[in-house]
Amino acid sequence: MSESSYSNELPVGRPPAAKLTATLRRLGIDTYQEAVIYMPSDCDVCRSEGFESQSRIEVRLKGRSITATLNAVTQALLGEGEASLSESAWRSLGAREGDVIELAHAAPLESLGYIRAKVYGRRLDQVGMDAIVGDIVAGRYSDLHLSAFITAGADDRLDADETIALTRAMVAVGDRLHWPSPIVVDKHCVGGLPGNRTTLILVPIVAACGLTIPKTSSRAITSPAGTADTMETLAPVNLGIPAIRKVVERTGGCIVWGGAVRLSPADDVLIRVERPLDLDSEGQLVASVMSKKAAAGSTHVVIDLPVGPTAKVRSAAAAEKLIARLTIVGEAMGIHTRCILSDGTQPVGRGIGPSLEARDVLSVLRRDHGAPQDLRDRSLRLAGEILEMANKAPTGGGYAMAAEVLDSGRAWAKFHEICEAQGGLRTPEVARNHRPITATHAGHVAAIDNRLLSRIAKLAGAPSDPTAGVELHTPLGTLVERGQPLYTVHSDAPGELAYAMEYVGDHSNVITIGE
Amino acid sequence: MSESSYSNELPVGRPPAAKLTATLRRLGIDTYQEAVIYMPSDCDVCRSEGFESQSRIEVRLKGRSITATLNAVTQALLGEGEASLSESAWRSLGAREGDVIELAHAAPLESLGYIRAKVYGRRLDQVGMDAIVGDIVAGRYSDLHLSAFITAGADDRLDADETIALTRAMVAVGDRLHWPSPIVVDKHCVGGLPGNRTTLILVPIVAACGLTIPKTSSRAITSPAGTADTMETLAPVNLGIPAIRKVVERTGGCIVWGGAVRLSPADDVLIRVERPLDLDSEGQLVASVMSKKAAAGSTHVVIDLPVGPTAKVRSAAAAEKLIARLTIVGEAMGIHTRCILSDGTQPVGRGIGPSLEARDVLSVLRRDHGAPQDLRDRSLRLAGEILEMANKAPTGGGYAMAAEVLDSGRAWAKFHEICEAQGGLRTPEVARNHRPITATHAGHVAAIDNRLLSRIAKLAGAPSDPTAGVELHTPLGTLVERGQPLYTVHSDAPGELAYAMEYVGDHSNVITIGE
Repeated sequence: MSESSYSNELPVGRPPAAKLTATLRRLGIDTYQEAVIYMPSDCDVCRSEGFESQSRIEVRLKGRSITATLNAVTQALLGEGEASLSESAWRSLGAREGDVIELAHAAPLESLGYIRAKVYGRRLDQVGMDAIVGDIVAGRYSDLHLSAFITAGADDRLDADETIALTRAMVAVGDRLHWPSPIVVDKHCVGGLPGNRTTLILVPIVAACGLTIPKTSSRAITSPAGTADTMETLAPVNLGIPAIRKVVERTGGCIVWGGAVRLSPADDVLIRVERPLDLDSEGQLVASVMSKKAAAGSTHVVIDLPVGPTAKVRSAAAAEKLIARLTIVGEAMGIHTRCILSDGTQPVGRGIGPSLEARDVLSVLRRDHGAPQDLRDRSLRLAGEILEMANKAPTGGGYAMAAEVLDSGRAWAKFHEICEAQGGLRTPEVARNHRPITATHAGHVAAIDNRLLSRIAKLAGAPSDPTAGVELHTPLGTLVERGQPLYTVHSDAPGELAYAMEYVGDHSNVITIGE
Repeated sequence: MSESSYSNELPVGRPPAAKLTATLRRLGIDTYQEAVIYMPSDCDVCRSEGFESQSRIEVRLKGRSITATLNAVTQALLGEGEASLSESAWRSLGAREGDVIELAHAAPLESLGYIRAKVYGRRLDQVGMDAIVGDIVAGRYSDLHLSAFITAGADDRLDADETIALTRAMVAVGDRLHWPSPIVVDKHCVGGLPGNRTTLILVPIVAACGLTIPKTSSRAITSPAGTADTMETLAPVNLGIPAIRKVVERTGGCIVWGGAVRLSPADDVLIRVERPLDLDSEGQLVASVMSKKAAAGSTHVVIDLPVGPTAKVRSAAAAEKLIARLTIVGEAMGIHTRCILSDGTQPVGRGIGPSLEARDVLSVLRRDHGAPQDLRDRSLRLAGEILEMANKAPTGGGYAMAAEVLDSGRAWAKFHEICEAQGGLRTPEVARNHRPITATHAGHVAAIDNRLLSRIAKLAGAPSDPTAGVELHTPLGTLVERGQPLYTVHSDAPGELAYAMEYVGDHSNVITIGE
């Protein structure tokens, strides 16, 4: 049997299309992270290739390539031969106005077969996870595909082996740091709690004890401040791998933004999709944490698990299950893992927002009178655990050793040294406008809504205005008089302060005062 | 315990935002069906409300409301106070240039809780299905949410009771037709096969026997022609419910476009998402078919299941399982259901494309010499089955009765009558350009690639050019000489013909000739 061929003389009329190209014009549409290509619906390329809205198109430029979803537009927005890209796609291709992109039908996504197999009840092995994660990082998955992957592995649908395979796949597609020291320690907090900036205190304590702790942190995604945002008010955090290496060689530690290095880049894509779905996936949570730690070259990790009704982990039982999985996967990646349950019912320290949180950190490091004791205590517990794991302190003696290092001023000196190595210690700026919110009657503070406080801090301008945020004066249980300030809103811009105050006026349940 | 209130005098500066509004400007961006709202990232409303890309926003206009995903844009594209909507959102709100929309944070999607519960292993009951389908039809689900719902119910994850609940929920959110006749018959084909236009032949046969058959059909989504596109070359199909009722009262049947009536509107949303995921879901397939039939008021339905390697149903075993589920759910909805397996290995008839398919239909109805026997035979089988189900023919006598009605000319007369009632019988137009593709060597036709033939028909312009398409001359097994035409490409536009012919030149495996 052989294949037939055809008499295929071309008819008169339009000549056959040459290589498919389009000239880029920036429309500046931000789809967050989904890659979208905009083209006129009746352009030659769309007609010849049968491209229509929702088609998946491979876009090539200067040796890079992404897969984008087509949104057809009218010729009023883009002319014949023109195309545009969503902002994230524009950036990931390094595009410039007028660049000529090459277009092709996206190849079928072979890795979807593995997701289908998982949905149909089979287990995902390393080959499948590698294929899926490879396609995710290459930007070949649409939101539909990402959501299907997350749903297929949600709850406890990924077993320990599958979680390990996912973790390995996520490490494999990113950069990896290597350190000369046989022990490299690290810390992670599952599910943010406003103001929980223990990292900036425990890193200098641990480094002052001679341990290596190259800490990478994230910026805020939906919160008023990430650890990297807070640290940035005190020193530069935007360091590449060679600069990080130098800082750690000199001081033993660093506190830098993880986004400048490419550790577990698949994680950022998955996190974006998990949030609006609000589907808990133990396997993906564990792979997210452990892939970042493994890529950072860590050997010993302590994990802070705040437990509370509005925290990520809501009960001790849920925490126990998560701890077991974190430990198993950690060991498989060659990482000794210890988890610490902590209170997740109220903010830590007083400040919410980059500069205000930095002020809390400085007052603890400088042993100021009135420094927030909860922030100090949490930091010492975590640092103590690390010192014990790494055999710097005897079992049960870690907290005391950490306290000694802090109280002697050695931690503050080390923090200073790290900031200088990262580019110089800065003094956090202070907002120009403050507005206190006072109690309308006497009583005790019975409840604090973390979510509303974070929202007010964001409306006031945090984190893009680092001085903006909320200063909490009265933690849970405080007895207050009528007219006593409960919290103060900080903002540089009067307009943003007005928005935040309007929100305050509309929400009387930020802090509940019992009789 | 009571709630506190606050001293909330507003600071000087910007006044508090009034009701959130924006003025519409049409950018003409087609996201297919996903609702997207475009606003300048630094506009007052976005800043005051904390709206950012991927925020879900409720958009209200003239008493209608949808939920849209925000894509922030630069001020170059939209000015302060302006917003735009994706084309589908624009249409569903009935928007006009300059309309003022009201904006609000979308309420949390309570129904996601039911999807989460399903993912976590619980079953979906009627309350849950009603909530989910209600939110889907109201446009409150993003692609992420839709994909999670489909994945959670994929494969056989929806049991019979859940499938029935989904079917009932889908019927409840749409329109419903009611007929005076106690027996209302209908037909459905699972998974399209090019040229399989049995509907246009069996409807007049069945109606000529005195049965009521109000048939709604779809237009092409990805194929070169839907049944409604083919019928439209013969008579108007865009009829509302009152017009449909009149046609059926007068003639017993109709063949109209289902999109003009709102039967099971959730189905259209789910189908759009299922396609790119390519996840089989027995429950959703069955609910899709049965919700449309129940909404149309059908009491007896015959279902054509083409089985073949490139068809939707690939094996007899898969067909058996599907038949069992269709029958159970049909009975629960009060619909007597019979399923017929048929050959799914090659196109039916000769034409692919609206006018060419209509020509096949006419030649069968008119008993032309050389009318395609496969199309005639399939139509008679299905019509016979309906006649037996409805007790018009004795068991085993349906096919003969259908053949008698067709051969006597009564079916052709009834078809004429139906077309006149729908607005007048038309003669399908013929394309101006034809290009035969000939065999390069002698042999027999060993394989036909349905997918490639459909692609060529689409490139030639089908279905938007109804005359465009492919005319197949040599079904499987035909002995051909060198130079004998295998198929002919039809197109009105020389440019589109050129594109189709270029594709033909690049693909030598459309029809495989054995030695």
